[in-house]
Amino acid sequence: MRLVLDAMGSDNHPHPDVEGAVLAAREYGVEIILVGDEPTLAPALAAQNPGGLPVSIVHAPEMLTMEDKGMALALKAKRKEAKNSMAVGIDLVKRGEAQAFVTAGNTGAAGATAYFRLGTLPGIERAALAPAFPTRTGSCVVLDIGANPDCKPENLLQFGIMGSIYAERVRRVRAPRIGLLSNGEEAGKGNQLVRDTYPLLKASGLNFVGNVEAKELIAGEADVVVTDGFTGNILLKSAEAVAKLITDVIREKIQTAALPVKLGGALVRPALRSLRTLLDPSQEGAAPLLGVNGLVFIGHGRSDAFAIKNALRVAKAAVESDVVHSIREDIAARMAQPAA
Amino acid sequence: MRLVLDAMGSDNHPHPDVEGAVLAAREYGVEIILVGDEPTLAPALAAQNPGGLPVSIVHAPEMLTMEDKGMALALKAKRKEAKNSMAVGIDLVKRGEAQAFVTAGNTGAAGATAYFRLGTLPGIERAALAPAFPTRTGSCVVLDIGANPDCKPENLLQFGIMGSIYAERVRRVRAPRIGLLSNGEEAGKGNQLVRDTYPLLKASGLNFVGNVEAKELIAGEADVVVTDGFTGNILLKSAEAVAKLITDVIREKIQTAALPVKLGGALVRPALRSLRTLLDPSQEGAAPLLGVNGLVFIGHGRSDAFAIKNALRVAKAAVESDVVHSIREDIAARMAQPAA
Repeated sequence: MRLVLDAMGSDNHPHPDVEGAVLAAREYGVEIILVGDEPTLAPALAAQNPGGLPVSIVHAPEMLTMEDKGMALALKAKRKEAKNSMAVGIDLVKRGEAQAFVTAGNTGAAGATAYFRLGTLPGIERAALAPAFPTRTGSCVVLDIGANPDCKPENLLQFGIMGSIYAERVRRVRAPRIGLLSNGEEAGKGNQLVRDTYPLLKASGLNFVGNVEAKELIAGEADVVVTDGFTGNILLKSAEAVAKLITDVIREKIQTAALPVKLGGALVRPALRSLRTLLDPSQEGAAPLLGVNGLVFIGHGRSDAFAIKNALRVAKAAVESDVVHSIREDIAARMAQPAA
Repeated sequence: MRLVLDAMGSDNHPHPDVEGAVLAAREYGVEIILVGDEPTLAPALAAQNPGGLPVSIVHAPEMLTMEDKGMALALKAKRKEAKNSMAVGIDLVKRGEAQAFVTAGNTGAAGATAYFRLGTLPGIERAALAPAFPTRTGSCVVLDIGANPDCKPENLLQFGIMGSIYAERVRRVRAPRIGLLSNGEEAGKGNQLVRDTYPLLKASGLNFVGNVEAKELIAGEADVVVTDGFTGNILLKSAEAVAKLITDVIREKIQTAALPVKLGGALVRPALRSLRTLLDPSQEGAAPLLGVNGLVFIGHGRSDAFAIKNALRVAKAAVESDVVHSIREDIAARMAQPAA
């Protein structure tokens, strides 16, 4: 198996990216191609003492950054002879020279590059970014969380199908429970999009558990939650911001308190550390962009080597389960059926 | 000043409601009319030893519950001779016998009853529920958080106008900064609704600070955040669910830990208590329903007497600042201007 890593992806590239690649090659026995500026990458790789590990470099002299957006980005993502690390890396997947592409770079840039270079699967109109959300009982795949701010009911139905296959094949959930994010649990709640999507999911043959709110999502009552990319993004950002507020306030309160509270803070630190693990996106490493014709994983810009390693682990699991093929087959089978 | 309290509102009615009313009458020197089932309320009120406090009872033999929804609710909310506590209470405001109505009952029922019995202000199409969100630096009014799952750009503009007036008059914020909830800070980010609303807010004369994400909201970078009721509800519920997850997990981790951690937990408890205060909706008591032709405040079903008392405090401040009048004047002035 060969995975491509955008070595120019993370905010602190290339060191976390290169180190994560070496760790993953050592730990998971996968071959890794680093894509990026060769003169920068060669010494960074050598510094990791890769020994005989199968980590190689493919040169890409340019890179996309957070500044790349809008039409200018679309052109860079689309241009056949583009020389940026995302385009070069994704082309390796397109030509079958590698099985998955992983980046911690600009999410919009990665999504646009994947969309233009790989295209979507037959029958899939929109690709969706599908991260795993921590819950009381494990995790829940939420999609879309940003690729498509405006969606139609058919898009959300397809997100449900793709999310279900991903949860089953890659995350090993049997008969994944699919929820529809809404502002109330009862059928009939929701905005127009949700109310129109509900009957489609109900008739889909998926294990649809109806509308869910954040409360149910976090309680672990669904394995996959479907929403448009705007709402999914608000959900995710709200959760992140509140988690950060609370942990910051606890830290400050303890640090500025009298000595007994400080002592208590030191004593509870091991308990709080496991909370940090629960809320840490680097555990998961990266989220798949489902619906494009190839495996693409996008991680946080602030990924460290540990996050990059985990992203490569998740990508490896997706390659092994052949999830893109499963989605393609499932959608083709549904399209072959006479409309209900 | 006379405030009406729905004494059948809270989940544990009438005791928290009646006790909160007596506390408010004593503490704030306001006259309070309790509306609800007189045979139930009279002994509940007597048990609070109201002495010479100006707390009276207006009989309403029926009540709306969480079971009331849809068309059946609309009929009960609308019917002229309705005898439920919300209808009777809101009619007191409509007839000018009281200046504000407060309830901890079913939000949808209260909204529908206010909408049908008071109507909206001239030029206002949709009323919006506008709670205060805790931030690092104080609080931020977010509207709408549930009354309107589907909105047009003009609705969001009006939410911005109403929120600005409310923040200025009632919450005493000078030149409130108005943000538009989006999936990214840059202009041009957002779903169709947000992209269409942005230029309206920009041209509104309000102190518009552009798109904000949850991160900026919680950092205190806006005093008012405008969004449709579906997205606002997702934002709020996500924040609540994550806050609960984290505080539950901390408690469990400490309780099930070894003795030193338990001891540490006891020592940090005072620090965590202030966190609970920060996240506790009962501090605020209730959120105004802005845009109806009268003052209506809606609180959490799980309100205790403290929350009810605070809700009555917030209602009193709104009466004193004459916020409904200000909104009416501002909208009338804007309508009198030639369209830009």
